[in-house]
Amino acid sequence: MTETDNKLEHLFPVDGIKLSTVEAGIRYSNRKDLVVFELSEGSKTVGVFTQNRFCAAPVVLSKKHLDHEEPAYFIINTGNANAGTGRQGLQDALRCCEQVAKFADVKVENVLPFSTGVIGENLPIDPILNNLSRAFDCFSESAWAAAAEGIMTTDTRPKGASVQIEIDGNKITITGIAKGAGMIRPDMATMLAFVATDAKVEQSLLQDLLNGVVNSSFNRITVDGDTSTNDCLMLTATGKSGVEISSKDKSIYDTFYKALEDICIQLAKAIVMDGEGATKFITINVQGGKHSQNCLDVAYSVAHSPLVKTAFFASDPNWGRILAAVGRAPVLDLDVSKIDIFLDEVQIVKSGELDLEYTEDEGSRVMQQHCITIGINLNSGNFSELVWTSDLSHEYVSINSEYRS
Amino acid sequence: MTETDNKLEHLFPVDGIKLSTVEAGIRYSNRKDLVVFELSEGSKTVGVFTQNRFCAAPVVLSKKHLDHEEPAYFIINTGNANAGTGRQGLQDALRCCEQVAKFADVKVENVLPFSTGVIGENLPIDPILNNLSRAFDCFSESAWAAAAEGIMTTDTRPKGASVQIEIDGNKITITGIAKGAGMIRPDMATMLAFVATDAKVEQSLLQDLLNGVVNSSFNRITVDGDTSTNDCLMLTATGKSGVEISSKDKSIYDTFYKALEDICIQLAKAIVMDGEGATKFITINVQGGKHSQNCLDVAYSVAHSPLVKTAFFASDPNWGRILAAVGRAPVLDLDVSKIDIFLDEVQIVKSGELDLEYTEDEGSRVMQQHCITIGINLNSGNFSELVWTSDLSHEYVSINSEYRS
Repeated sequence: MTETDNKLEHLFPVDGIKLSTVEAGIRYSNRKDLVVFELSEGSKTVGVFTQNRFCAAPVVLSKKHLDHEEPAYFIINTGNANAGTGRQGLQDALRCCEQVAKFADVKVENVLPFSTGVIGENLPIDPILNNLSRAFDCFSESAWAAAAEGIMTTDTRPKGASVQIEIDGNKITITGIAKGAGMIRPDMATMLAFVATDAKVEQSLLQDLLNGVVNSSFNRITVDGDTSTNDCLMLTATGKSGVEISSKDKSIYDTFYKALEDICIQLAKAIVMDGEGATKFITINVQGGKHSQNCLDVAYSVAHSPLVKTAFFASDPNWGRILAAVGRAPVLDLDVSKIDIFLDEVQIVKSGELDLEYTEDEGSRVMQQHCITIGINLNSGNFSELVWTSDLSHEYVSINSEYRS
Repeated sequence: MTETDNKLEHLFPVDGIKLSTVEAGIRYSNRKDLVVFELSEGSKTVGVFTQNRFCAAPVVLSKKHLDHEEPAYFIINTGNANAGTGRQGLQDALRCCEQVAKFADVKVENVLPFSTGVIGENLPIDPILNNLSRAFDCFSESAWAAAAEGIMTTDTRPKGASVQIEIDGNKITITGIAKGAGMIRPDMATMLAFVATDAKVEQSLLQDLLNGVVNSSFNRITVDGDTSTNDCLMLTATGKSGVEISSKDKSIYDTFYKALEDICIQLAKAIVMDGEGATKFITINVQGGKHSQNCLDVAYSVAHSPLVKTAFFASDPNWGRILAAVGRAPVLDLDVSKIDIFLDEVQIVKSGELDLEYTEDEGSRVMQQHCITIGINLNSGNFSELVWTSDLSHEYVSINSEYRS
């Protein structure tokens, strides 16, 4: 899918953030696979992490280090997730942090490690340790695009988003990159994403901001329903712009929140658009629920239905499959006689029955599009939720049956 | 998959049950697609039905008729599910029942309708009504195999199971047929299955028996996690053998229960083996849970993971995906440090970490098999559950993206 390619040449540098990306040969040669972030002194960093109980060694260590010290460096490798690797995995992640700490003359707790790639194999640390000095030689503030490439696995393209806003005549920059294409059903965070701003934000407020925006962005996407062991989303505020965001000035706070949310939504959508084998970008808009959770249960029941997803791959308006997926959602008092279903503006189901004015031609026309909205109105309340997903294609099966070979 | 083909020539007739199968041209020509069951007077029938809220018109009507009268006839069509068809669908199903009732001189409430096939299109009733008289001309007690063919949709082969047991020197027969290959995540029942016995069983006990055995058979299988709108499992006891099953004689009851459960498990497994595009039959055996539900949550999290399923399709012992799926199961106090994971007898994960004695060669050897057991021991309690599923192949995507075209 190419409709909304993020233009990575437009990623604004963030004052106080330097990046470096090298080819370390971790799994494949001639591929950018090692990224280091350098955060200027005084930066505040917060994160949200996977809820998968088998969380990977770097996730365990990043959470621990974040609890103890202010981060100064991120070290990110692709090619290997260092997940399911037990004590050896923790030692390996720690060794990488120690090497960074030695080069930078900081404490090991100032370094957060991140890994993505194959699960269940030990991290090859030699290529990482041997290439770190090269990485330290080429830090740059304008190297976001290369870093976005350097964290990719099965992604077909790098993902980034960037914005500059003015607050009281002062410019603030927010820039982020993300990776992810499969094993996408974020639960508090998704895959790897790194967002930075030069605004000044106090730590606990920064965490509140992140928790808020993640809920309307990364926590609303799914490719295959599989929550990763390595999901991490980090948000860093360097403060270099001198503009402070606080909860005291609601107007400034709201402006910043909206801009940050927009960046996260762009990154989250870019992940779904690049979903493994995806040929369609599907928005599921559930309205009229008694509770948010009801709307989400219906949306995810549709988003995870292999039958709905294959029908979209076929551009087949086989709406019966959408109806069947809605009907199996775990919503106790779902009243099907009230439900309306739309494909974009075309109404298919009216009060739980086929809309007599619906024609297969109209449905087929919408299904030819790359971006399609499934609208579901439960007509039972005032809550609504949006979820974004992709279709299920031969390419998904190919990618995931050939990934390790 | 061909390992455990059910030998339909071995289906024993059930005294008191006659069947008839004809080609009515409902969706395709030259295909058996209309089946009628005739149940002898005095037969008791019970059923379990889909929990999908959008349940199909024939399901609504069958439940209603079953509440009012003792069934004398089943009329079953394939090619069209008569689901999502609203009031028109109910009228169409009723018309079919009326025609059967007219031919047989019974009340319309003595007739139960069942449909399977495409969702969301009106039932073409003319081919059904026009071919019913032919069906009434060829009832036979030994026509189970043809009926098993006559209820197929995307199934690649008919499914049946049959057993004769002796109780106190008297022979009892249990015979059943089933259909289903996709949209398989039964919830109280699955797809269409019809089981009959010549034992004599009082109605409420028959329902208890059915509720019991469905829980260890049809409610333990999943192909794609999609619960159908048309699931129905009917159990009829004609009483013709003269042998009564009652709860008073525990030994007789247990013998019968075990035989009935065995037939249902055979039928349920046959559905998974014929799962759309399936190349592998996967048993997920979760042990050591604190509750049954914990075991089921873990088992279904693995069974529904597209990443696990594609790895099995590739015969790739990518066990990290199993571990990730276990880790995202909705079990609150899951202690990953206690978990052991096996592929057949090969231990992969020991106390939450890669077993140091595991070799990729051993894992690969097991993955080449057609039938594989994923063993997961939570080591936290005494409950265990079995779930059966299949892999996710290109053929699944092909079947479901080409099904309506």
